[in-house]
Amino acid sequence: MKKLINDVDTLLDESLSGFAKAHADIIQLSSQPHFVRRLQAKTSGKVVLISGGGSGHEPLHTGFVGLGMLDAACPGQIFTSPTPDQMLAAAQALENDAGVLFIVKNYAGDVMSFEIAAEMLDYPNATVLVSDDVSLDKNHSTGRRGVAGTLIVEKMLGAAAENGADLAFCKSLGDRINQHTASMGVALTSCTVPALGKPTFHLDDNQIEMGVGIHGEHGRETVGLMVATDIVERLLITITDGLQLKPGQQVLLHVNGFGATPLMELYLIYDLASQFLQKLGLSIVRSLVGNYTTSLDMAGCSLTLTIVDDELIRLWDAPVHTASLRWGC
Amino acid sequence: MKKLINDVDTLLDESLSGFAKAHADIIQLSSQPHFVRRLQAKTSGKVVLISGGGSGHEPLHTGFVGLGMLDAACPGQIFTSPTPDQMLAAAQALENDAGVLFIVKNYAGDVMSFEIAAEMLDYPNATVLVSDDVSLDKNHSTGRRGVAGTLIVEKMLGAAAENGADLAFCKSLGDRINQHTASMGVALTSCTVPALGKPTFHLDDNQIEMGVGIHGEHGRETVGLMVATDIVERLLITITDGLQLKPGQQVLLHVNGFGATPLMELYLIYDLASQFLQKLGLSIVRSLVGNYTTSLDMAGCSLTLTIVDDELIRLWDAPVHTASLRWGC
Repeated sequence: MKKLINDVDTLLDESLSGFAKAHADIIQLSSQPHFVRRLQAKTSGKVVLISGGGSGHEPLHTGFVGLGMLDAACPGQIFTSPTPDQMLAAAQALENDAGVLFIVKNYAGDVMSFEIAAEMLDYPNATVLVSDDVSLDKNHSTGRRGVAGTLIVEKMLGAAAENGADLAFCKSLGDRINQHTASMGVALTSCTVPALGKPTFHLDDNQIEMGVGIHGEHGRETVGLMVATDIVERLLITITDGLQLKPGQQVLLHVNGFGATPLMELYLIYDLASQFLQKLGLSIVRSLVGNYTTSLDMAGCSLTLTIVDDELIRLWDAPVHTASLRWGC
Repeated sequence: MKKLINDVDTLLDESLSGFAKAHADIIQLSSQPHFVRRLQAKTSGKVVLISGGGSGHEPLHTGFVGLGMLDAACPGQIFTSPTPDQMLAAAQALENDAGVLFIVKNYAGDVMSFEIAAEMLDYPNATVLVSDDVSLDKNHSTGRRGVAGTLIVEKMLGAAAENGADLAFCKSLGDRINQHTASMGVALTSCTVPALGKPTFHLDDNQIEMGVGIHGEHGRETVGLMVATDIVERLLITITDGLQLKPGQQVLLHVNGFGATPLMELYLIYDLASQFLQKLGLSIVRSLVGNYTTSLDMAGCSLTLTIVDDELIRLWDAPVHTASLRWGC
């Protein structure tokens, strides 16, 4: 294993320290327990948005803390859920009269930690569970996983909260965005978790993993390498079926790289995806292409669609100023 | 070789097509010959900035076309220089009364192509040659290579040109920024050029390449894997020597990933670099961390320092609206 690190045990601390120094104009790092909080948080009338999860998916979530998006992010160790004291400390540091909303990717450990933190909070709070990974069946025993669609939930909810929407509205909006969002990914290679020191899973030189999770979880099926057009078609058939899309609908298309995928390839995937969606009579009204919800050094990508209306488009377009997503200010 | 592509021969076209669709609000793709041009280019009083080079380094250069940065970028095939007709067509499409400035990374093929294009232009033009790679000796036979510092030259020159600086001023400013910029990289793995189908160079499991070029060129030396602190120290000793930095000086620090390096590692490198520079009495006044000048799927990073004064800081901070660098608007 070759990594730009000093020691597996100090990797997260050193990385967060660098992140905090590089973006000292936007965020602040609190330690013991760790959370990244927005500078200049509002002290009244704004629902506090807190997310978090295992590290290794950067820029998700720490890179999305700032004006118009998250108020705080709680990073666990790599691919490991954060602990309830992190969310509790973040909530206590940022709470105001409008309440706290947790945005949680649907993984058992994350859900449990956020639930415990929610129970310990003595002021109004709610949780939006993100479960956009349609590679798993809707009735899967633990539900669908939260993957790259999380960014879209965080961006749109961030705009609503910034505009003063109340807790009930934000909770309902978050659930609606999640229901209107579907993602599916494909891996060309495994990632290597530093503490493990070797690839998480094995793929032959001519194999790819369809429906892979963002921790390298086994997906729908391991299949032979195919051309990009066929990969995109397989992903989008599942996604559009999952959303029951109809001609004429407007969508946001997010092509996400898993960390080791050249931007050239992601744009090629975008081209093919837009052709496929156009044939279905769908209208791509907003786009995002890049490495946003990563799996360390995994090669591959995911596609995410969100059905949008004028309200969601306005929330997407609203100003955002974070380390990794910035426009309008 | 596993890539998200259809065919090696159509990869660039399909990728550019996707790029143009995803960013239709900022740029436009012209074909035969290929160049990416800014929408809403000024028709008078603004020096036209044109760069280009082999593809595979995305987002450089196409991702930097837009308000406050480049007016056009001319992409060659992967790791292959663009041809003079591309720069000529871009210049002719965008020219106005203020003249044209080429920003060229110092590679023989790029230099030759841009020189031919310059000779064919019948209106005022100049060229800024970027040669920031201090892993090579200053007196190297072909001069130093242009690497990640190119982004800094393009950003600052873009702001100056947007503000109405004339051609002579832009040329002189570009040369000054280049002289005040130094970079050096390290590779953990090779990249794989699609047309070649196998890694460009070989590194053992315990080896890294110090001073690697952005096409995987052999660098200063192949050395054993070392901890990140030692890697950063080696890179920064060469860089700070190259710039003859003195305590008290202000610098911009750019940590650039080569494409397959997790953001966690880049921020860790930033942390170590900032500690090292602080010990030297240097002041980091601006930062940029991310995958900006990539080498397809190479793992590793480069460090770039630019000595800045108030003028250069203002140019760095000025509004920019491109596909991959955006702030202030």
